[in-house]
Amino acid sequence: MSAKIRIGIVGYGNLGRGVERAIERCDDMELVGIFTRRDPADVHTAGASAHRMDDLDQRTGDLDVLILCGGSKNDLPVQTPELAARFNVVDSFDTHARIPEHFAAVDAAARAAGTTALISAGWDPGMFSLNRVFGEALLPEGDTYTFWGRGLSQGHSDAIRRVDGVAGGVQYTVPSADAVASVRSGERPTLTTRQKHTRECFVVLEDGADADAVREAIVTMPDYFADYDTTVTFISADELARDHAAMPHGGFVIRSGVTGDGATQTIEYGLTLGSNPEFTASVLVAYARAVHRMNADGQIGARTVFDVAPGLLSPKSPEQLRAELL
Amino acid sequence: MSAKIRIGIVGYGNLGRGVERAIERCDDMELVGIFTRRDPADVHTAGASAHRMDDLDQRTGDLDVLILCGGSKNDLPVQTPELAARFNVVDSFDTHARIPEHFAAVDAAARAAGTTALISAGWDPGMFSLNRVFGEALLPEGDTYTFWGRGLSQGHSDAIRRVDGVAGGVQYTVPSADAVASVRSGERPTLTTRQKHTRECFVVLEDGADADAVREAIVTMPDYFADYDTTVTFISADELARDHAAMPHGGFVIRSGVTGDGATQTIEYGLTLGSNPEFTASVLVAYARAVHRMNADGQIGARTVFDVAPGLLSPKSPEQLRAELL
Repeated sequence: MSAKIRIGIVGYGNLGRGVERAIERCDDMELVGIFTRRDPADVHTAGASAHRMDDLDQRTGDLDVLILCGGSKNDLPVQTPELAARFNVVDSFDTHARIPEHFAAVDAAARAAGTTALISAGWDPGMFSLNRVFGEALLPEGDTYTFWGRGLSQGHSDAIRRVDGVAGGVQYTVPSADAVASVRSGERPTLTTRQKHTRECFVVLEDGADADAVREAIVTMPDYFADYDTTVTFISADELARDHAAMPHGGFVIRSGVTGDGATQTIEYGLTLGSNPEFTASVLVAYARAVHRMNADGQIGARTVFDVAPGLLSPKSPEQLRAELL
Repeated sequence: MSAKIRIGIVGYGNLGRGVERAIERCDDMELVGIFTRRDPADVHTAGASAHRMDDLDQRTGDLDVLILCGGSKNDLPVQTPELAARFNVVDSFDTHARIPEHFAAVDAAARAAGTTALISAGWDPGMFSLNRVFGEALLPEGDTYTFWGRGLSQGHSDAIRRVDGVAGGVQYTVPSADAVASVRSGERPTLTTRQKHTRECFVVLEDGADADAVREAIVTMPDYFADYDTTVTFISADELARDHAAMPHGGFVIRSGVTGDGATQTIEYGLTLGSNPEFTASVLVAYARAVHRMNADGQIGARTVFDVAPGLLSPKSPEQLRAELL
């Protein structure tokens, strides 16, 4: 049997934790350690050793792929090109509008270094993106719809918590059942933002806060809530802790099109995730396996999920895959 | 703009017809002609020119990819290796148990000739196979379930028509709603053949045939019906022609697994197809685009959908895909 793929995790929030746990379920991988900007003594892992980020300078020979678990806003735009200059890397960069510039920066670093760097893995961008490409390619005459949820949105939850009088809260994005039914039926509707999703907020008030004023501030908030039908439910701090600690998410990508003289064809890809960060982590780990193989095969530079042959994600050999799963 | 991809269709049944129509919707392709073992004068196409199969000998310089639309039982085991020795090819070989030997025969021919030959494209094998691989790779601890239908099964319809006293008939494979609900819930049930699907038969009797005897002969038929709950509904020849002429099909691949300390994660890929042969044809056409690009890139030999980077299926450039669909 060939040696295990040696993985390092950079950054240890919910995503890094998820990667640590996902690697436990992969017999062909070993976790070398977690690299963090914090004091390693303060990082309580599920078992992996924690190291200072600077230690990476001495570890280029010990690591096959780094999985970068920092944030898309401040961490990855700097870290991914920097680390791609020394390591094969996978990141989950998810600022859709900035993917072209991120790709270019990472590609330059990776090509110069002879490394392989897969950006924007996860489920959206990631598995949902793949299904948008498959859908368009298989049914050129058609429309693609992406619905998110029911799921906890971190960005919208943060926006709620910034409102005066709010002690805590979470926001769930919910696809509209009517819109989904219409799309599934093959009607190919034109849907407004308001028609596609609703937003459900669960909010804990500060002592003495004005509930009506808080509700009004939330539902009229531009960008986040004003374009949606938003409900606000006030709950206690205990209820928040008890009922809203999980991080579920999911959604669907639906391609609805026609072939021949108008036969309706519908392709639907759906995710129902008990833990959003753990699923994203699982995707990153599978793509780390592909990156290791692509680099060994001389495929250097930046890549996205569009460039990865699906068989490379599996620990099974091509022969096994053909015999068992084709 | 680069030249169009020049496609030839080999064999002209329902699948070949579907390929002809699918190419109409692809601006980057042109259909050179249909190659058939019949007298071309007897082949009534939707517009393409029909040629004798032997004419292929003179056409190696005019064709970029051949899409092989013959049957898996008798045609493709001979045709795919033979034609891969002269052309890039795509086939829809769907005898799951014989894929390894078919792959080996095609691979030898294609490698010797420097061609690229993609076998077993379509939806099962094909898109369903891909989703079985993705599911297993992303959720190593889990179970994969494939359900087919509601859809017309050609093989089972043929079996009905061979029963004494039957003048005509069709069979629909139907996934059991209870089984699907249980799988979607994350319960990961163990399901018997009988629990997963039911079979619905619509049968036209010959004059004077014994309905009870026909029903009994169908529901007890080994391999085809004995292991399933099968219903037989007798209809008139007019009803058969009016209500059962379409070829709908579809189904789902569901991967249900856990991550971390037991968070339930479910991935579902589903197809609802108004026309089974037209959708299969659309898949073959998209993979013909990929085969053309892979051959230009020096990737020769036999391939399956597991070996094809998804971006190669799209007429869009990698830059466009990253900007628009990632």
